[in-house]
Amino acid sequence: MIEAHADFPAQHLPDLPLSTPAVVVDRRILDANIARVADSAARRGLMLRPHAKTHKIPEIARRQIDAGAVGLTVATIGEAEVFAGAGIEDLFIAYPLWVDMRKAVRLKLLAEKTRLRIGTDSVEAVEQIARELGDAPLSVSLELDSGHHRSGVLPDDALPIAQRARELGVRLDGLFTFPGHSYAPGEQSSAATQESAILAGTARELREAGHEIVHVSGGSSPTAEVEEPTAAQEIRPGVYVFGDAQQLELGRIGIQDVSLSVAATVVSRHDHEEAEDDGPSLRRIVLDAGSKVLGSDRPAWATGYGRLPNHPRARITALSEHHATVVFPPEDALPAMGEQLRVIPNHVCLTLNLIGSVTVIDGGAVLGSWKVAARGLNS
Amino acid sequence: MIEAHADFPAQHLPDLPLSTPAVVVDRRILDANIARVADSAARRGLMLRPHAKTHKIPEIARRQIDAGAVGLTVATIGEAEVFAGAGIEDLFIAYPLWVDMRKAVRLKLLAEKTRLRIGTDSVEAVEQIARELGDAPLSVSLELDSGHHRSGVLPDDALPIAQRARELGVRLDGLFTFPGHSYAPGEQSSAATQESAILAGTARELREAGHEIVHVSGGSSPTAEVEEPTAAQEIRPGVYVFGDAQQLELGRIGIQDVSLSVAATVVSRHDHEEAEDDGPSLRRIVLDAGSKVLGSDRPAWATGYGRLPNHPRARITALSEHHATVVFPPEDALPAMGEQLRVIPNHVCLTLNLIGSVTVIDGGAVLGSWKVAARGLNS
Repeated sequence: MIEAHADFPAQHLPDLPLSTPAVVVDRRILDANIARVADSAARRGLMLRPHAKTHKIPEIARRQIDAGAVGLTVATIGEAEVFAGAGIEDLFIAYPLWVDMRKAVRLKLLAEKTRLRIGTDSVEAVEQIARELGDAPLSVSLELDSGHHRSGVLPDDALPIAQRARELGVRLDGLFTFPGHSYAPGEQSSAATQESAILAGTARELREAGHEIVHVSGGSSPTAEVEEPTAAQEIRPGVYVFGDAQQLELGRIGIQDVSLSVAATVVSRHDHEEAEDDGPSLRRIVLDAGSKVLGSDRPAWATGYGRLPNHPRARITALSEHHATVVFPPEDALPAMGEQLRVIPNHVCLTLNLIGSVTVIDGGAVLGSWKVAARGLNS
Repeated sequence: MIEAHADFPAQHLPDLPLSTPAVVVDRRILDANIARVADSAARRGLMLRPHAKTHKIPEIARRQIDAGAVGLTVATIGEAEVFAGAGIEDLFIAYPLWVDMRKAVRLKLLAEKTRLRIGTDSVEAVEQIARELGDAPLSVSLELDSGHHRSGVLPDDALPIAQRARELGVRLDGLFTFPGHSYAPGEQSSAATQESAILAGTARELREAGHEIVHVSGGSSPTAEVEEPTAAQEIRPGVYVFGDAQQLELGRIGIQDVSLSVAATVVSRHDHEEAEDDGPSLRRIVLDAGSKVLGSDRPAWATGYGRLPNHPRARITALSEHHATVVFPPEDALPAMGEQLRVIPNHVCLTLNLIGSVTVIDGGAVLGSWKVAARGLNS
């Protein structure tokens, strides 16, 4: 019944009685992750522009910049406003914005405070940018579809957009892509190759047509660490600061790289209940961390809705808003009522968006807390 | 490829240019939903105690009380604190709380402000309540498992917990259950029958053993409107105030009952892309509402990650944090770039937890906004 997609040794985390659920970040592991990816980017001659939608925390952004990041990537104007306010001087909103009047006002103010780049993927959006933003001092990067089939244009459709931008005086001087399909099992290397080929080919085509392309940007967390030559000059990984159960189960990080977990309490315990009619085991505990703190993302290949670092064979089989149902194999004892356990969320970006602050620890010591300043800023 | 689980006529919602994504509540439909369920409960002689985790908004709580609700249900102490602060005088935390020292302090303060009931499902939790809460003026209800297999005990395990409460002087005077399996297709009526049988049988057993049971509480949104006799004296539906795509696709409400939608803008549009290798259609738009506003719940039977009321044949095939990928059938024209559409989330309780406020409308007129005062209060 229970199949392990990722095995790891049980962790012996310090006992930290907290008011649960509480999100805990180990600063030492966080800093090691920040340094590892910064060093890898530097060694490969790549500019690192971490995606701040993962953490939404100015203190973490500052540590990324101090470790050598050239600036930050964000997903929304609201996130850009928070990080510009916190003193970050170079921001890329890697999203095909539709710049209406209200968004234009905010972007103009932002462009006065910080170096600013935004995304686009259509002639219509470029025309809207020309109309609403005029000669505001910002640049535009064109999003390419490198196989994820979300936003972004196919390489053949890139040139007409760049031409239209030139006609209208819009400074389109970059390309970017998000190889989101690299998150699927076995797709990491081929997605990285595809990404590189599409960026290289389109940059060449646009340059041959006389367009100055100074930003060539790629790289999700899974492809950022593929140690192969790439046409990207910049990478934008996000998840690497914390790690999560998805990255762990894909085998792309180890349990020692996970810096964030959710402390949760055993609130219900059912040690002697049997399965019904060949159904799944009903021998379970319930933790007070549900989808409203873990997020409910669950790829088909995942073992469940997150992982318990101290109980690698346990499986989170169901998640309600405030309940995680955790089934244990017959050979493992169930934790006691009231015990506090740690849970690693499947997709850590969702967790940060659900909470007001994180508790910062170093091994067994609580150092304080950081505010999730850009939480919930969807527009 | 596209299979409709619930058909409905396209709606022609008024155009409301908003800064998207924005969550919009139609007050007239909201009030009709509040009145419909209040009338149905009154006609059946049931006390109505709506679950406020769905909306988290004091203005909506007040409308529910004014329509005849006896009090509110909440999921966490934090939610109870907000609604007690807003003047609601009768609250049930329908959750098996593990009452540690910090939670005990908060519960004692709450019990001074409002009539308070909390949940439990084990001898250990009852002992903890006795230890930490002493003679605080609150009552305890025992959670029963009526087939959902989350928290809650099987009927055979109820009596020992009630006995232990009596020994320790804990006022255990109620039973409750959550028939969460009633959300599955075809399970509504049988889940309601199971719920009623388990509540009736356990109440009888405990009363015969001399326990005074004054609260018998059941009813998710799907079972609350089953018009059959029930042993429950109180129901706790939550979702009915807004409706959502799950309820719509289960056929339990009509499109005219949905009071909440997310306004989103077309930010990317791909009209001429063909499917690859027998894959799904790639003819799509992308909206700026992703899992960080819609939530990522998606039951296996759902058609996608939400529904578009104006485009009943469109399917939300993928959701990223800030992107909804929407595929249209060949016969439907794609909406234009920059157009604002409405999206009905799959599970509306998650959406309210992701935003700071809702825009309140009446048909085409914007009336103002309500703050989501209990957002993100997980403990």
